[in-house]
Amino acid sequence: MPAPDLRVQLSEGRTCPIYFAPLTDVPPLMETEGLSRGRCVVVTDEHVAEHYLASLTKALELGGWSPLAITLPAGEQIKSPGPLQRIYDTALRARIDRTTPILALGGGVIGDLAGYAAATLLRGLPLVQLPTSLIAQVDSAIGGKTGINHTTGKNLIGAFYQPRLICADLSSLATLPELEWTSGLAEIVKHALIAGETLRVDLERNWTQLLAREAAVVQTIVHKAAAVKVGVVSEDEREASRRMILNFGHTFGHALERVAGYGHFTHGEAVALGMRAALKVSHLVHPDLPLHSLDRLVQQVPIRHSISDFPINTLMNAMRYDKKTAGEVLRLILLKRPGEAYVTGAVTADQVAAGWAFVHGA
Amino acid sequence: MPAPDLRVQLSEGRTCPIYFAPLTDVPPLMETEGLSRGRCVVVTDEHVAEHYLASLTKALELGGWSPLAITLPAGEQIKSPGPLQRIYDTALRARIDRTTPILALGGGVIGDLAGYAAATLLRGLPLVQLPTSLIAQVDSAIGGKTGINHTTGKNLIGAFYQPRLICADLSSLATLPELEWTSGLAEIVKHALIAGETLRVDLERNWTQLLAREAAVVQTIVHKAAAVKVGVVSEDEREASRRMILNFGHTFGHALERVAGYGHFTHGEAVALGMRAALKVSHLVHPDLPLHSLDRLVQQVPIRHSISDFPINTLMNAMRYDKKTAGEVLRLILLKRPGEAYVTGAVTADQVAAGWAFVHGA
Repeated sequence: MPAPDLRVQLSEGRTCPIYFAPLTDVPPLMETEGLSRGRCVVVTDEHVAEHYLASLTKALELGGWSPLAITLPAGEQIKSPGPLQRIYDTALRARIDRTTPILALGGGVIGDLAGYAAATLLRGLPLVQLPTSLIAQVDSAIGGKTGINHTTGKNLIGAFYQPRLICADLSSLATLPELEWTSGLAEIVKHALIAGETLRVDLERNWTQLLAREAAVVQTIVHKAAAVKVGVVSEDEREASRRMILNFGHTFGHALERVAGYGHFTHGEAVALGMRAALKVSHLVHPDLPLHSLDRLVQQVPIRHSISDFPINTLMNAMRYDKKTAGEVLRLILLKRPGEAYVTGAVTADQVAAGWAFVHGA
Repeated sequence: MPAPDLRVQLSEGRTCPIYFAPLTDVPPLMETEGLSRGRCVVVTDEHVAEHYLASLTKALELGGWSPLAITLPAGEQIKSPGPLQRIYDTALRARIDRTTPILALGGGVIGDLAGYAAATLLRGLPLVQLPTSLIAQVDSAIGGKTGINHTTGKNLIGAFYQPRLICADLSSLATLPELEWTSGLAEIVKHALIAGETLRVDLERNWTQLLAREAAVVQTIVHKAAAVKVGVVSEDEREASRRMILNFGHTFGHALERVAGYGHFTHGEAVALGMRAALKVSHLVHPDLPLHSLDRLVQQVPIRHSISDFPINTLMNAMRYDKKTAGEVLRLILLKRPGEAYVTGAVTADQVAAGWAFVHGA
């Protein structure tokens, strides 16, 4: 097999290889990464299963594996104790052992849920991430964050647990529903704002082709966006500090999702709107930041609804509930310059309100 | 505060200090270990709460902490999804953040459950183990194994998650029910067989005083038994190989618990009987092993029931279900010499049957 396209550097000299390759390459890649052939468990959802489960299963069987598939309903609601328990029950009744890999075939929801199951079954099974959505390929499948939601908030139950390998099949992006595609674009723009100099230029030049999902442009941009995530995670696997910059726009975005009710905005739409607010606050603190050219890039992400129905005071209150707050201080990610993000606790309520007003007024 | 009595060496240069100190010392010890004062969550059970919760709470409040107590029913049945969810709900509604420590006040059950909650809340909160039982002080609180049971077996859902500090109050052993005391003795004997030269001599010389819980003898022996566990975990934090020797007698013991029904034997009784079988198999493979003197030590552990009701064939079949089996090979821990244990997959069914027959015939 070829060398990995990217490699995440982890603690204790471990690494996580990322391949951009067809799903039919997964069996030889698993062998390359030292997983011992035998039983494996594929966790997926009904939408993804329809397109890719049969071909993956066939490839695994040809490669000498005995795959067991667990197909869950599609949607965020499966990141909850019931579906998690279903994975536990099915896997444990199938007599898995500590060498049995869990393959997460799907988008961010499947990756988070199956990843968390892998983290906690028998105190940790080998995990293979097979991201099929844009957001998963450039962001959520990379870096080892796994977990489920709690009634009081998203991702509140979870673990850091690194996959043994990631294989992203770019051809699966062709079947992605429009809203999921848009969500992924928002995260790509985020990566371009916080770190990716050449990615930002590529986005500005090739936005039309990207929206049309032209294969060559998608390949270049997904690769570069994933590389930004790889770089940040390699510096700070456990989100002690540096990794928090990946939350650029998210404190605002989470507040917006909470206030609007989950589902009103997609996560990507909320993040895009949140980034606009974060850019405005950044500009207040660093007046040299080219607010309008960066904001133009964010505004290219298609967003269906405005935030004008949601009063600024309500949004401000909702921000206090974010789990990224350590102690009582609201911590935000700001841009000092394009591509240079940092975490700060020194933002005033007035500045935050001005951020929201900027999005309101647009 | 004084230096720790023991220190577990962990990956990436981290360590976990162990103090044998009164529970009233916990607040200053938490400060020494860099935990930031504020809210904390104490998880305990009704039996332990009755004796120790009020004094711990008072000490925490005097030390500037705001403790929130979660008191669960006593018993193995709380290592299950319902009580885990109760901890999640209570902690998350109390608006914990990533710096909020979870204190596990109790025996092995509380340590496993609260430890797992700490491992999975907000992807990991600081964990303080406050073991009050013998088995927890010498074994289960040390080494980072956390988890809950599944209907198909014990500890099948879990995580490796190291405490930030362990504080064992030896005076809490005085109130321990007899059966729990006995369970702890079995694990201490196990530590003496697999590694502890001087511990073995101490046990042979001071067994009567130990049974009577004489403070000076208890202190020496608990310290030495904990040191055996510390040594093994420091060599192999994640149970890649060496750490498996701590399961000496457990593959037999787990099978016995499964066949007899959980609760018929205590875990300690099952392990003691399992160690007798494992000693016999060890002796078949290594005829120089002093079977009878080692077996005499194990037989000093008080055991209420014999295994004669359980046919050897049934026990043999039950061993195949143990999660320590990797692939299809039954792996056992054997002794080569006293204090020298190793893992092997090269044991015949006849040898295993002879091990069970040895316990049957006694």
